[in-house]
Amino acid sequence: MTELTTTAAGVFVIAVTPFHPDGRIDMESCDRMVDFYLETGATGLTVLGMMGEAPKLTVDESRDVVARILARVNGRVPVVVGVSAPGFAQIDALTRMVMDIGAAGVMVAPPGGLRTDDQIVAYYHQVAELIGDVPFVLQDFPLATGVQIAASVIARIMNDLPTCVCLKHEDWPGLEKISYLRKDGVLNRRISILCGNGGLFLPEEMARGADGAMTGFAYPEMMARVVADYTTGDIARARDIFDAYLPLARFEQQPGMGLAIRKYTLAKRGVIAHDTLRKPGAALSAHSKAEVDALIDRQEHRLKELS
Amino acid sequence: MTELTTTAAGVFVIAVTPFHPDGRIDMESCDRMVDFYLETGATGLTVLGMMGEAPKLTVDESRDVVARILARVNGRVPVVVGVSAPGFAQIDALTRMVMDIGAAGVMVAPPGGLRTDDQIVAYYHQVAELIGDVPFVLQDFPLATGVQIAASVIARIMNDLPTCVCLKHEDWPGLEKISYLRKDGVLNRRISILCGNGGLFLPEEMARGADGAMTGFAYPEMMARVVADYTTGDIARARDIFDAYLPLARFEQQPGMGLAIRKYTLAKRGVIAHDTLRKPGAALSAHSKAEVDALIDRQEHRLKELS
Amino acid sequence: MTELTTTAAGVFVIAVTPFHPDGRIDMESCDRMVDFYLETGATGLTVLGMMGEAPKLTVDESRDVVARILARVNGRVPVVVGVSAPGFAQIDALTRMVMDIGAAGVMVAPPGGLRTDDQIVAYYHQVAELIGDVPFVLQDFPLATGVQIAASVIARIMNDLPTCVCLKHEDWPGLEKISYLRKDGVLNRRISILCGNGGLFLPEEMARGADGAMTGFAYPEMMARVVADYTTGDIARARDIFDAYLPLARFEQQPGMGLAIRKYTLAKRGVIAHDTLRKPGAALSAHSKAEVDALIDRQEHRLKELS
Amino acid sequence: MTELTTTAAGVFVIAVTPFHPDGRIDMESCDRMVDFYLETGATGLTVLGMMGEAPKLTVDESRDVVARILARVNGRVPVVVGVSAPGFAQIDALTRMVMDIGAAGVMVAPPGGLRTDDQIVAYYHQVAELIGDVPFVLQDFPLATGVQIAASVIARIMNDLPTCVCLKHEDWPGLEKISYLRKDGVLNRRISILCGNGGLFLPEEMARGADGAMTGFAYPEMMARVVADYTTGDIARARDIFDAYLPLARFEQQPGMGLAIRKYTLAKRGVIAHDTLRKPGAALSAHSKAEVDALIDRQEHRLKELS
Repeated sequence: MTELTTTAAGVFVIAVTPFHPDGRIDMESCDRMVDFYLETGATGLTVLGMMGEAPKLTVDESRDVVARILARVNGRVPVVVGVSAPGFAQIDALTRMVMDIGAAGVMVAPPGGLRTDDQIVAYYHQVAELIGDVPFVLQDFPLATGVQIAASVIARIMNDLPTCVCLKHEDWPGLEKISYLRKDGVLNRRISILCGNGGLFLPEEMARGADGAMTGFAYPEMMARVVADYTTGDIARARDIFDAYLPLARFEQQPGMGLAIRKYTLAKRGVIAHDTLRKPGAALSAHSKAEVDALIDRQEHRLKELS
Repeated sequence: MTELTTTAAGVFVIAVTPFHPDGRIDMESCDRMVDFYLETGATGLTVLGMMGEAPKLTVDESRDVVARILARVNGRVPVVVGVSAPGFAQIDALTRMVMDIGAAGVMVAPPGGLRTDDQIVAYYHQVAELIGDVPFVLQDFPLATGVQIAASVIARIMNDLPTCVCLKHEDWPGLEKISYLRKDGVLNRRISILCGNGGLFLPEEMARGADGAMTGFAYPEMMARVVADYTTGDIARARDIFDAYLPLARFEQQPGMGLAIRKYTLAKRGVIAHDTLRKPGAALSAHSKAEVDALIDRQEHRLKELS
Repeated sequence: MTELTTTAAGVFVIAVTPFHPDGRIDMESCDRMVDFYLETGATGLTVLGMMGEAPKLTVDESRDVVARILARVNGRVPVVVGVSAPGFAQIDALTRMVMDIGAAGVMVAPPGGLRTDDQIVAYYHQVAELIGDVPFVLQDFPLATGVQIAASVIARIMNDLPTCVCLKHEDWPGLEKISYLRKDGVLNRRISILCGNGGLFLPEEMARGADGAMTGFAYPEMMARVVADYTTGDIARARDIFDAYLPLARFEQQPGMGLAIRKYTLAKRGVIAHDTLRKPGAALSAHSKAEVDALIDRQEHRLKELS
Repeated sequence: MTELTTTAAGVFVIAVTPFHPDGRIDMESCDRMVDFYLETGATGLTVLGMMGEAPKLTVDESRDVVARILARVNGRVPVVVGVSAPGFAQIDALTRMVMDIGAAGVMVAPPGGLRTDDQIVAYYHQVAELIGDVPFVLQDFPLATGVQIAASVIARIMNDLPTCVCLKHEDWPGLEKISYLRKDGVLNRRISILCGNGGLFLPEEMARGADGAMTGFAYPEMMARVVADYTTGDIARARDIFDAYLPLARFEQQPGMGLAIRKYTLAKRGVIAHDTLRKPGAALSAHSKAEVDALIDRQEHRLKELS
């Protein structure tokens, strides 16, 4: 088993959950998706992300999906599992289940009712006590959770809790948070910072000191190349690559609708068999599909010019 | 099995979930609680209410609690189970599980993201389709869910969906909604309206046409007497009783803290063995307990004066 | 001029804004209202409260109303003016205007976008710097503002800013906040705590160390008597009085609708000429008016029994 | 005077409010800004936008800014003024003031408390009745207002109210709304649709039937060219131009921080003298300024390649 540590870097792709048109989980597509993500440069995977379709799965289905993905990954990269839930009993049960079958760690977003600094800090203390020595990712995604976490509060949590090894950075705007957490003296150790928001600010995030991305854009190769080029210092090339994918990335980064676009693109790329979303979930209109198609065409053209 | 119908009336007490001090479910207290609720006049029970500690239970625990309560009730009154969840798979699984073991129906609150009228109507259509012929309660509780449902939208849902047999009325203010739904021509049949908010507006709700209460005040006998007296037309006595309990009812109706007050009172009355709340859940301060004690003393004194 | 200080105590009634049926401000009713409030025991007045109709007034009208009320009060009690606004220029302009004509201080609620502790503290620092030596009230009313202020954050603000002399305490539940702020060592001086929420928790608030009420129940004499009896230690009588008014106080304390009920009651008592609310503002239904009438009848009957 | 009509098209630039470093309004920069916007292709201007610094102005300052801009525009293009406010008296007063000095119409966003369809429709009916024959823009910007307006509700408002001549389209995602409103039979006349969100979806919005943009990107020439090219059918060139500006446009479109970036860019371009934001308003960090500089450099390079 690979355990998640503060050295996590690169691209942890947030995996979608593939379904058959009738709503059953498509396990064959799960396998193909895992292979695809790893081939396109994923250094880790994250499953059951809160913004995806995890809440649409029963407990049994959640376990089956995680088990299938872990089996296919077979220890090649760490797999993080989202376990955010309204109550501690659920978080505890899901954490034990997925760690038992080989997950590398879990990810926890704050429940929507938290407001004051102390409430947020207390919540993560309780989570850390609950799950014991399991390493976890703090997900900071105010647009989705409604919870604003100050950079100083993230630092308090990180400094208090050694098992909090990674920040999924997804505030918008959030660049100053990275700079703050990378300042000397703020944290008592260097933790991993992996960024979200569909990769839409990845160049600036890397320049500020992020270690990579943890998000779900349908072209993980973009993120892998941008992270690699920033790591080796080839900033200009990183930005060229980024700009080529940006029109589509921007289009995928539409709240609610983004997952449908991502699944449509993954199906078009042959990664998953169907672009089905489980109910409740809106299908893409023909117009939206045509827009995605046009963006992909232009993107491929632009990438050819660059190569 | 008793099935929930549009004739539901009286007092459906929202049951608490009793725990041992170490956090395990206290099944013996479950039994005693069921007996107590029925002795104090409950005409139904509601379990796994969303504002209680249902989200703190694992799926297995939820089933065990519901099974224990159903066994103890043993068909004497209908038992409604709250099945609100972020995804349909969870709602479906929980609904099937509890109906299989004898629940009378389920209760569904709207998920927090719903905003427009059509979104809300579409959601309940999908729920009704999902759970088939299972009768359900529409829970309208904007303070907790963040979803505002217009009275006309409740009427649309009720008129569209024959399996929606009851409104748990908990808007604040919400009296005009009852009057609207009781107007001639608004609904295509008379549905049951049971009111929440800790019984704090029960006299006015009964006068507007409610059929009773579905809420969790620690003195269900107050609600039973108010409903009975309104039903027989003894308004003055209903109000005397109500007024005697109001100082405590008001105190119990503090968001978040109310459940701790209720459990403290139920433990003090000998109904449940411990006033434990599962984490995360605040304990009552000594000061708060003394305030409850003082309110109960005055309440008993006042009730003696009335009798 | 009377200046607001940390010794503010008793009942600061939140004044309504009386209108003629055609929407013009009713200045004669303003005068009568001032007299009524002072006769029923007000030790201060608060005007342009954010939950009232202040946002429906133009800047010129605001000045005229405040000037009229100040003229009528004529220095007998301090008058606090609500100056909460989206921008500092507006707060500054309104503060200067009302202080120039004799206000005792201003009241500031946090704008809805504030979330983290530091954001809230920074906001009040900026406000205090802006308005200079003008004493101000911090309004803590999460249900209306959406901003949760931790008790420790209130303490930080109070300790940092000598001109912050009073807390308008209106969290729900909020009793533990009073106890916290009254603990030795928390504040660097004793500040005034005046409570809101329509007086619905006034006995418990006084017992916890509050100095009185700042809210708008249509029977200020209830609040004046409860505060006086708590101050002299006659707790039992305070609670008898409180309980007698509670059924109506509870009814008035319905969000949004409460102001219409208050104006209806004040008009019925002959204090203001009309119960008009400016648009947008819902009128009371005949049913609601009858409910208020019935509650007042029972209240008078109960008060007679007590005297 | 130019009056706003349903034929409004092109680019209505949302004007910033220029300040001196000490916080006074910079009227000279106002003039230069107007000239700049018109030279770069603006077909209209919008001032006192709700997301800008309008709430930081006193009523007198608002009038002075609008008057200065109107004087400089001197009838060459229509000027829309944002008049959203918590109360009708304020909306009414501001509307009369700006129409008297030559505004072409006003823009009204829904107040944050509106939830149900009927509440939203009723609000706009009241607004329309209030302002009489003044043409107005309905601003649909849920991310900022918190109010979700269904496409069918926009249609109801447009069909009911002839003076509602334009939709400021700023939902995210919002493309399906444009398609819906452009379907045969939905509206009883063709209204103007101008899009916001910093122009980030302008190509797709034009393809769906929008008439142009109403937003504030610091390079209005991008929007003018995209709109022009879509109008003449040169889609490929429109997309080339759009893509060249997209990295900066994306960066400017960060909530809260975007205005600081915009002002920094406008100052760098020599349009306004200072990038000052009035308090409360965060200054850009040196790091952020360097990021903007780098994006502008790459943008200019890319534009040269295209020409």
